[in-house]
Amino acid sequence: MKKLNVKAALGATSAEESVKVSGWVRTRRDAKGFSFLEINDGTCLANLQAIVDEKCPEFGQIHEFTTGSAVCVQGALVESQGAGQAWEIQASKLELIGKAEDSYPLQKKRHSLEYLREIAHLRPRANLFGAVFRVRSRLAYAVHQFFQEREFIYVHTPLITASDCEGAGEMFRVSTLDPKDPPRTEEGEIDYSKDFFERPTYLTVSGQLEAEIFALSHSKVYTFGPTFRAENSNTSRHASEFWMIEPEVAFCDLEGDMDLAEEFIKYLISDILEHCAGDLEMFGKFVDKGLHERLRFVTERPFERLSYTEAVELLENSGEKFDFPIRYGANLQSEHERYLTEKHFKRPVTVYNYPKEIKPFYMRQNNDDKTVAAMDVLVPGIGEIIGGSQREERLDRLDAAMEHHELSKEDYWWYRDLRRYGSAPHAGFGLGFERMLMFVTGVGNIRDVIPFARTPGNAEF
Amino acid sequence: MKKLNVKAALGATSAEESVKVSGWVRTRRDAKGFSFLEINDGTCLANLQAIVDEKCPEFGQIHEFTTGSAVCVQGALVESQGAGQAWEIQASKLELIGKAEDSYPLQKKRHSLEYLREIAHLRPRANLFGAVFRVRSRLAYAVHQFFQEREFIYVHTPLITASDCEGAGEMFRVSTLDPKDPPRTEEGEIDYSKDFFERPTYLTVSGQLEAEIFALSHSKVYTFGPTFRAENSNTSRHASEFWMIEPEVAFCDLEGDMDLAEEFIKYLISDILEHCAGDLEMFGKFVDKGLHERLRFVTERPFERLSYTEAVELLENSGEKFDFPIRYGANLQSEHERYLTEKHFKRPVTVYNYPKEIKPFYMRQNNDDKTVAAMDVLVPGIGEIIGGSQREERLDRLDAAMEHHELSKEDYWWYRDLRRYGSAPHAGFGLGFERMLMFVTGVGNIRDVIPFARTPGNAEF
Repeated sequence: MKKLNVKAALGATSAEESVKVSGWVRTRRDAKGFSFLEINDGTCLANLQAIVDEKCPEFGQIHEFTTGSAVCVQGALVESQGAGQAWEIQASKLELIGKAEDSYPLQKKRHSLEYLREIAHLRPRANLFGAVFRVRSRLAYAVHQFFQEREFIYVHTPLITASDCEGAGEMFRVSTLDPKDPPRTEEGEIDYSKDFFERPTYLTVSGQLEAEIFALSHSKVYTFGPTFRAENSNTSRHASEFWMIEPEVAFCDLEGDMDLAEEFIKYLISDILEHCAGDLEMFGKFVDKGLHERLRFVTERPFERLSYTEAVELLENSGEKFDFPIRYGANLQSEHERYLTEKHFKRPVTVYNYPKEIKPFYMRQNNDDKTVAAMDVLVPGIGEIIGGSQREERLDRLDAAMEHHELSKEDYWWYRDLRRYGSAPHAGFGLGFERMLMFVTGVGNIRDVIPFARTPGNAEF
Repeated sequence: MKKLNVKAALGATSAEESVKVSGWVRTRRDAKGFSFLEINDGTCLANLQAIVDEKCPEFGQIHEFTTGSAVCVQGALVESQGAGQAWEIQASKLELIGKAEDSYPLQKKRHSLEYLREIAHLRPRANLFGAVFRVRSRLAYAVHQFFQEREFIYVHTPLITASDCEGAGEMFRVSTLDPKDPPRTEEGEIDYSKDFFERPTYLTVSGQLEAEIFALSHSKVYTFGPTFRAENSNTSRHASEFWMIEPEVAFCDLEGDMDLAEEFIKYLISDILEHCAGDLEMFGKFVDKGLHERLRFVTERPFERLSYTEAVELLENSGEKFDFPIRYGANLQSEHERYLTEKHFKRPVTVYNYPKEIKPFYMRQNNDDKTVAAMDVLVPGIGEIIGGSQREERLDRLDAAMEHHELSKEDYWWYRDLRRYGSAPHAGFGLGFERMLMFVTGVGNIRDVIPFARTPGNAEF
């Protein structure tokens, strides 16, 4: 008896006299004298059809095999008579492993995405989410493959941090103090010297600064881990807990950074096109009809590169009517990004050298004294998907920028040390993993590409 | 001009007329008329030696090339005259990219591990830590390869959670409430409905329960992510933030679980022996002389399997004098584990079927009404490295166990649902990633295998 999963059974190259497949009943159709069971085990989108007739001793109990039930089917794997599948199983024995109660919520009718979020413990069994989470797994692996093949070192930067990164206030506080009655100093302030880490601590918003440490020891590194934002924003693109990828490379300038970003995006898409073809086909049919064209669009064309200054001029002279007028010194809005990628260049666009006023302190200052060596990669449909920069490696320039941003030298003593001891040009970028997953699947809401999304008011499961 | 990293230069198969290598000066030795620069870029343990003599225009400034400085060397890659390396570089041009100030802390003398923890931003440049973090990266990749090759789906379980898993109190609280003056209910309690997630939330201690959701949709899954413990314990084996791997497999019983654990451990060790040979050699020389023997010990022998009851009998009859006397119903102590693996069986040991009183509610109850289908893998030198179990898939048994553990059915509504809708036997285990890394490197303190360790009182960097 050969144990097969559904994917292996459907991909068989020859008939098998005796196989055994376990999975869950997606649907059952009863006819006179026989029944069809559609069985899925999450290994692929397609179901394996089992034909159960009177030769199967459990045929009399076939009504027990309800939608959602866990079953094991034994029988012969034979060429399918029906359309749509190459192989089916002629059941000689059926085992009901775990019956689904009749209240099983995933009956055949179509459910809203909102409803499915409320049953996030069952939605991975729906076609859409089965596929999303297979692609998510493959995409994560492709991230590792890309960097490991190129000799990048994977670094686990800390999640709990005492530095509040640029004073951005939107962080979660981490504590073991009794919230009802925390210890206090004589002045009535919270006495954090009594907290677990003996200081205030938060959940990280980025591993970049720590990744820079490792770029300056191991040359090429990347992070891939959870990141947090305590922003009270309820959009389809923001979650409070998400995964981020941040490569950081020593002896690398902005141009090398842009090259790496372009190569990376193309690699990820090509990998998913190759390894998740069946799932992507479903997304292209039911989620986003333009998906394949958009993915080809990105993989097949060299990315256009232009400076922020050029981009602003181009937008100003476009004759296009934007909701947000563009002017030098302002951030590009989604409509501007889409104009550049979708209408003007008809390809992905990398915009570089942004005004220093709208960028963080650590970006490398250009000689024009106006801009920093930042870059954003814009793709059609989504807009910005990657943000990165060359980092300021010169201590005097860094100190001036920190002073300008009112950051304390003491807090960043180790970051400054990197510029005192063997500093080198280095650059990196950040890619939000979920945003990339939305891009390759066409799924429009970040809540639907995260197993159990954390958003304001939501921490169920 | 060929750009090479140090690893590629040292692994060259032929001489090269003109190469360019960037890295950091580990040491410089000056002789009459020439200097040796040892250059490392983190790509491997060994340094590349550059010979600088009067033909190099920067020879006059050689004293500027201090230990720790970032440099770029151009020249010919030639067969080395000295012992210990195959290739060296005859410098024709030297560039000082970033000079290290004279106070650079990593001078040639040996530093204590305690001191190096205080300069965790520089210690990745020390031989030991350069190697530890290369092995860490490779080990993480091997984890993914193992599971992806076997068609497991990688699941990102949530870090922020509202469930306090078995009422184990040792969790970090996550909040955005003002700690000085939090909103309160009329009764004076903290009003968590005003908190970010509208309920109390914590950092997760395990992704297992959520992984079970995906095992029951995708059949074979694994997690690999950060996990937290707010235990105030200052041992060499505990950190407050660490990474954990948790596979979970549907249609799998305890035996299948033990098979998977054994295959996994052997795979990881073999992978590191193959891909990190140079770094392991250093660990075997300077960290743990018995390392290679211990690793071979684990890869070459089938793991011994015996029940908890058998293990206790064996220990009772061993004639061995233990600090903690063993009796049925007690947890095995480290000394017992070491006796079993190192003295008695002289191989790794998997102990299974533990008394239900000492195990959590979710483990599958055996028919003897005394034990549960739990298993621990014990290895020499470390003791327990993996803990796992078959999970209770029967709703009535699960409910009884939850009642016994005084857990609320409402809190676990979704976990119970998994037993109502297509339940199936399933099993899994947890492996602490850092503990495995300590095992393969011989490094004795968990603080030295984590880039920036979080322990009570420590959250620097």
